[in-house]
Amino acid sequence: MDSRLRTDPFGQDELSRDAFLGGRLVVAQPRAGYRAGIDPVLLAASVPAGPGDSLLDLGCGAGVAGLCVAARVSGLRLTGLEVQPAYADLARQNGAQNGVAFEVVTGDLTAMPEVLRQRQFDHVIANPPYFDRRASTAAQDPGRERAMGEAAPLSDWVAAAARRASPKGTVTFIQRAERLPDLLAAMAAHLGSLEVLPLIPRRGRAARLVLIRGRKGGRAALRLLDGWLLHAGAAHERDGENYTVATALVLREAAALPLAR
Amino acid sequence: MDSRLRTDPFGQDELSRDAFLGGRLVVAQPRAGYRAGIDPVLLAASVPAGPGDSLLDLGCGAGVAGLCVAARVSGLRLTGLEVQPAYADLARQNGAQNGVAFEVVTGDLTAMPEVLRQRQFDHVIANPPYFDRRASTAAQDPGRERAMGEAAPLSDWVAAAARRASPKGTVTFIQRAERLPDLLAAMAAHLGSLEVLPLIPRRGRAARLVLIRGRKGGRAALRLLDGWLLHAGAAHERDGENYTVATALVLREAAALPLAR
Repeated sequence: MDSRLRTDPFGQDELSRDAFLGGRLVVAQPRAGYRAGIDPVLLAASVPAGPGDSLLDLGCGAGVAGLCVAARVSGLRLTGLEVQPAYADLARQNGAQNGVAFEVVTGDLTAMPEVLRQRQFDHVIANPPYFDRRASTAAQDPGRERAMGEAAPLSDWVAAAARRASPKGTVTFIQRAERLPDLLAAMAAHLGSLEVLPLIPRRGRAARLVLIRGRKGGRAALRLLDGWLLHAGAAHERDGENYTVATALVLREAAALPLAR
Repeated sequence: MDSRLRTDPFGQDELSRDAFLGGRLVVAQPRAGYRAGIDPVLLAASVPAGPGDSLLDLGCGAGVAGLCVAARVSGLRLTGLEVQPAYADLARQNGAQNGVAFEVVTGDLTAMPEVLRQRQFDHVIANPPYFDRRASTAAQDPGRERAMGEAAPLSDWVAAAARRASPKGTVTFIQRAERLPDLLAAMAAHLGSLEVLPLIPRRGRAARLVLIRGRKGGRAALRLLDGWLLHAGAAHERDGENYTVATALVLREAAALPLAR
């Protein structure tokens, strides 16, 4: 295992407790490590899960994405895979604190643990590291670096996700828009019926992130959806909370995104 | 050469004369063959050409895309390559009729004519066939089929375009959105600084077409731009002429699209 993995549990003073989905979810996460923003919430909002479906969150970190899906979908059977033992522990605690049965497996997606290798899920989601470290600088905090800097190539993430999806199952990723060529190539190699939802910061600006979904055995042509607008107004000045009404519904009321249809 | 190429010249009764760019351009095109709609106009509006630049239109057909660029950019040095002799003749006539010096080479992009093989251009554009005929049905008109059904793979089009672009030169394609995985892979293999502009029929609907631009030797990260909205309103009923104001400026007044910056 990677020597920079966080293996010792977080101390209470290392953790903050943050509300998501208008307080439906309260999650402990490290003050100094990888901290969830709105990205895992948007990922969760794009999963077309129905009551009782099973879902695997690959690289679940402290568990925000999966727990957000559980907050929207009743009876979700939630599993996470996390390589850093300290984050896996935190995800388990966050499940318990929020009253969600959350099975968290500690392990590496490039050496899939036996307990997951025989199983498939209705939905697989991932918010993989955004930065290819061959072309960028590492974060100082080792736990944050493992979450942000790509240890396994994006194509390994997609291949692992596709293998864990059941027939007709969905695989949904959130990733930086600039990785679209790699991401689409990997998705097209393993999945069909691809759908891409650009996340547009403000009208007229380029997407920083994309949501992309494929279906195992899907045969429909790719659909490039009209971009989802995150912030209202054209100004840079008030970058804080001026989400569009539709985005605020997703972030505060656990509403679904168009990809979740 | 392909036996279904149109080699005999069009008769006058086979041709219609159609106005583009609010009448700045009048183009003869076959009533029954491949007919330009708004796609080549949008392609032309996305080229970042300046006065005196050189431009190659790969598979120029009757010449609409290149002639639209010439109508917007003064002193454009315009060249076209067209495999069907009857369409190449038509493009030459359309250049002459519109007072544009238009060099049209008859030949196949997969066997680049010698006269073009030694040259490079500031800008290369293409509106390649939209349909992979391994998975679709051919058009009855042979000239239309050559323009619509893919004889050479999309990757050959992109490779040929990239070879004909000068250092720092741009390559711009318009293509169906569902071809994005193939198109991005091909563009990323030969070009950098990719920019993708989805063309959104109406707010909230999926893109039917994308414009994609790369730069030879470009090193910037891919940018996925906010989609360009073609039609105003949500209704299907009045699908005729209700373009957005910004799109009407492009189609009627030869305004440029964001990609042309």
